[in-house]
Amino acid sequence: MSRLDSLIRRLEAQRACLNLAAEIIRDIDGVVLELGLGNGRTYDHLRELFHDRDIYVCDRRVAAHPDCVPPPERLILGDMRETLPALRCQLDGRVALVHFDVGTGDAAANLAIAAELTPHIVPLLCRGGVLVSDPSINAPELAPLPLPDGIAPERYHLYRRL
Amino acid sequence: MSRLDSLIRRLEAQRACLNLAAEIIRDIDGVVLELGLGNGRTYDHLRELFHDRDIYVCDRRVAAHPDCVPPPERLILGDMRETLPALRCQLDGRVALVHFDVGTGDAAANLAIAAELTPHIVPLLCRGGVLVSDPSINAPELAPLPLPDGIAPERYHLYRRL
Repeated sequence: MSRLDSLIRRLEAQRACLNLAAEIIRDIDGVVLELGLGNGRTYDHLRELFHDRDIYVCDRRVAAHPDCVPPPERLILGDMRETLPALRCQLDGRVALVHFDVGTGDAAANLAIAAELTPHIVPLLCRGGVLVSDPSINAPELAPLPLPDGIAPERYHLYRRL
Repeated sequence: MSRLDSLIRRLEAQRACLNLAAEIIRDIDGVVLELGLGNGRTYDHLRELFHDRDIYVCDRRVAAHPDCVPPPERLILGDMRETLPALRCQLDGRVALVHFDVGTGDAAANLAIAAELTPHIVPLLCRGGVLVSDPSINAPELAPLPLPDGIAPERYHLYRRL
């Protein structure tokens, strides 16, 4: 499998998981939280899926396409080890969907970042809220959900807060 | 359509065109020329498609994943307005497949670059050789080929040298 095949497979899995998550949380109140803005591609997809929800975005800095920069009141810049704990004042238990894709391109590094940030992410999720994640996540409060049809195990990850 | 949808559609079109081009040139001798290495993703795909052909790559500089850097004897760095004319000494009429994806992210700029480089690309192609291109290309020596099944017009481009 070439790197082109691999990227297509990953993006298709990401999109399928986000689309399924949108169905799962349809009847759950709450905002959406994008962890990792990057070039703004998945933020743009989240905007299309969630016209009626506020979408908050955390990243270290803005490197997105100008059309895909969130409004300043929902853009939280800085190291997520500091910004996520601070977000609890505002969003504790109020997030219906978190999408986590820090995307360093290094799977081991992504897992380490995910492990470090997980304790700060979980309390933000409301009961029944969904976490869509590139790296796998371990937390006693999260139960894995079945992936969308056609997406192989471990290609992307879906969890629900118990 | 979100930017995520749009990228997936573009990459799927690119892959389908490269795979079809590989079938079309199966019985034609010649090397492969990748114009625009970028991160090396399509170069990696070309390597998988063409185990038995030399693949030459032009770009301004190397910004690819370390696993996707061509060997120095087939890597031509510099401004393609200068390097492509110089390549004619070596590859004139010897290229069975050119893949052109300069990828500035700006469609109008890509078209302008393509128009400027086309007169330097066409003479490199052998008779029956195929040009796979992101921007559309106009040259009297090139005939458009039908796109692969499922790929909409203008999403990617295929030409054959008459």
